[in-house]
Amino acid sequence: MEPVRATYRLCSSANRIEERARALVLEQTVELPDPAVRDTSIRENVIGTVEGLRPSGEGAFLVDVAYPAGAFDGSTSQLLNVLFGNSSLQPDLELIDATLPGEEWARFGGPRFGIDGIRERAGVPERALTCAALKPIGLGVEELASLAATFARAGVDVIKEDHGIADQRSAPFAERVPACARAVAEVKERTGRDVAYVPHISGAPNQVLRRIDEAREWGASGILIEPMIAGLPFLTELVSDDPGLPVLAHPALGGAARIAPELLFGTLFRLFGADAVIFPHHGGRFAWDGGTCTRLAERLRVPRAGIRPSLPVPAGGMAVERVPELIRFYGHDVMLLIGGSLYLAGDALEERTRGFVRAVDSA
Amino acid sequence: MEPVRATYRLCSSANRIEERARALVLEQTVELPDPAVRDTSIRENVIGTVEGLRPSGEGAFLVDVAYPAGAFDGSTSQLLNVLFGNSSLQPDLELIDATLPGEEWARFGGPRFGIDGIRERAGVPERALTCAALKPIGLGVEELASLAATFARAGVDVIKEDHGIADQRSAPFAERVPACARAVAEVKERTGRDVAYVPHISGAPNQVLRRIDEAREWGASGILIEPMIAGLPFLTELVSDDPGLPVLAHPALGGAARIAPELLFGTLFRLFGADAVIFPHHGGRFAWDGGTCTRLAERLRVPRAGIRPSLPVPAGGMAVERVPELIRFYGHDVMLLIGGSLYLAGDALEERTRGFVRAVDSA
Repeated sequence: MEPVRATYRLCSSANRIEERARALVLEQTVELPDPAVRDTSIRENVIGTVEGLRPSGEGAFLVDVAYPAGAFDGSTSQLLNVLFGNSSLQPDLELIDATLPGEEWARFGGPRFGIDGIRERAGVPERALTCAALKPIGLGVEELASLAATFARAGVDVIKEDHGIADQRSAPFAERVPACARAVAEVKERTGRDVAYVPHISGAPNQVLRRIDEAREWGASGILIEPMIAGLPFLTELVSDDPGLPVLAHPALGGAARIAPELLFGTLFRLFGADAVIFPHHGGRFAWDGGTCTRLAERLRVPRAGIRPSLPVPAGGMAVERVPELIRFYGHDVMLLIGGSLYLAGDALEERTRGFVRAVDSA
Repeated sequence: MEPVRATYRLCSSANRIEERARALVLEQTVELPDPAVRDTSIRENVIGTVEGLRPSGEGAFLVDVAYPAGAFDGSTSQLLNVLFGNSSLQPDLELIDATLPGEEWARFGGPRFGIDGIRERAGVPERALTCAALKPIGLGVEELASLAATFARAGVDVIKEDHGIADQRSAPFAERVPACARAVAEVKERTGRDVAYVPHISGAPNQVLRRIDEAREWGASGILIEPMIAGLPFLTELVSDDPGLPVLAHPALGGAARIAPELLFGTLFRLFGADAVIFPHHGGRFAWDGGTCTRLAERLRVPRAGIRPSLPVPAGGMAVERVPELIRFYGHDVMLLIGGSLYLAGDALEERTRGFVRAVDSA
């Protein structure tokens, strides 16, 4: 296998950077002081090599590292361990990027549906997809089902649940999901128009797997997961067990301050199998910059032999008025998720949502 | 249920802090703009309340929040979602602390063995426990088993594997773990002295569960897990399924989220059931300060009705010479983990390890 390459941003003075970079590659592999590594083959086949040191602003350097195949075992957990396990505990270090060799991409396989699979299921071959969110937590089952019907009538392609809607007493999973699925199916029958209901699946792994089976049986068209809470190794396992439904990945707990967002949400979420990835678009509630969003979407969609592209889902404080701008920014291979701002319409929710759908149609 | 209380550090000017704090509690619960929340009972029973705002250095505030019971569903995933799900994506915000009500502690149950259970299994009623690490990755099965025997002869209480030792071809799990367990058992038979072998269990959830069963069968005395890679909901599930072995928690990838270390490793790891928690002691390879270590150990051991204390395992660049200082710092309810620095002794590894054991005995 080709090495896995990573780039870190490390705060250090120029006269200490070589020593710090060497300490970094030891930490991430053998976790031994240099003189304690006695075996030449371990030096060659396990320890990372510092391939480049480039100044990056005042008092910091970009450190390019190659980790040899011998450090890995093909698992998600070990890949994360080597990339940023112990070093994540250093406050002056960020993981900026990583390049996985083709074998790694092939092993994990990436999304099982990807953009084409989602488009096919939604019956939307070309234009941007639209998505609205069921919320807030605290609403009862009937109210959520009624909201789902409203969004379905208004013509959005995908109705996802808020990631905070879990198994609260106000709307337990086992009552809420069949009720919302039924509400959406009824509208679908009347209008003949496709609409996907994507419940939020949370809990611990066995519970998640059970809930996916139940959700599929009740008529869900996809599942919403938070990979950083559920655990990335679990995402990989879940996808390779083939849930039969597209996975919409939510960025919660992804606090990307120390792992670059484009690497975590763009490269790694796709590598591990997310079909669509939600992330904050700049200019919303989250202080992200446009360059990050561009690079993240690029990572999700860049052609890779045998690996499906993931659908970018910019969100986090978007409004209908921004639809043309969003489509100029991302093009049509995108799903626009408008959450809270639709709800500001109050009783005019259905009409505002229709406006959202029309804005995408005419963009 | 009593509310869950959390404290955040939020960078903001004084004239915007009230608005930012209100946005924070909306984000973490209803994820709606204020005017879109139409239901009074949701305002009262779901949205967090800002209970305090205190300046914290230049341009920042500590924000005390109470989240009502209605936001939660008893799961690990939803607890994490409310505490820091979306807000982790804000670069100017840190989760500083959280106070869980007694019901939450009772629900999760904390460690199943805890300090007393680990001491009983190790046959060490009073003094500090000693721990050495099998490393580095790249060694073969025979070499690792021989190292395990060396450490066992030298008299350490616990021999743990490095968290980078996974299922690499150099030492596959299914060959390595029985071989190391056997090597340790042989020394134990000869010397009559207890010694625990704690293999690293990695992979995706079903694989982890399978490997725990195998490890137990082969004679392992505990398991090493990285909860932030495996997923905290999985840790909870694993512990409540009763693996029958103490869980030693490793902090890998725990730096990525801007959660205060004493909260993440001290409170939450204990809440979710880790019996012993590894963390960097200050003055080693990781730039942590002593106050953080004190508070973290305090969180692990503070008496809580019906909840076992977790054993602090300071590590990350410790040397035998620091043993007296470490025991003055942590007292005797501690396990001292000396990793790489023992290996600097080369062929004198066993003797250096004996020195470690003697230093703890005489402290």
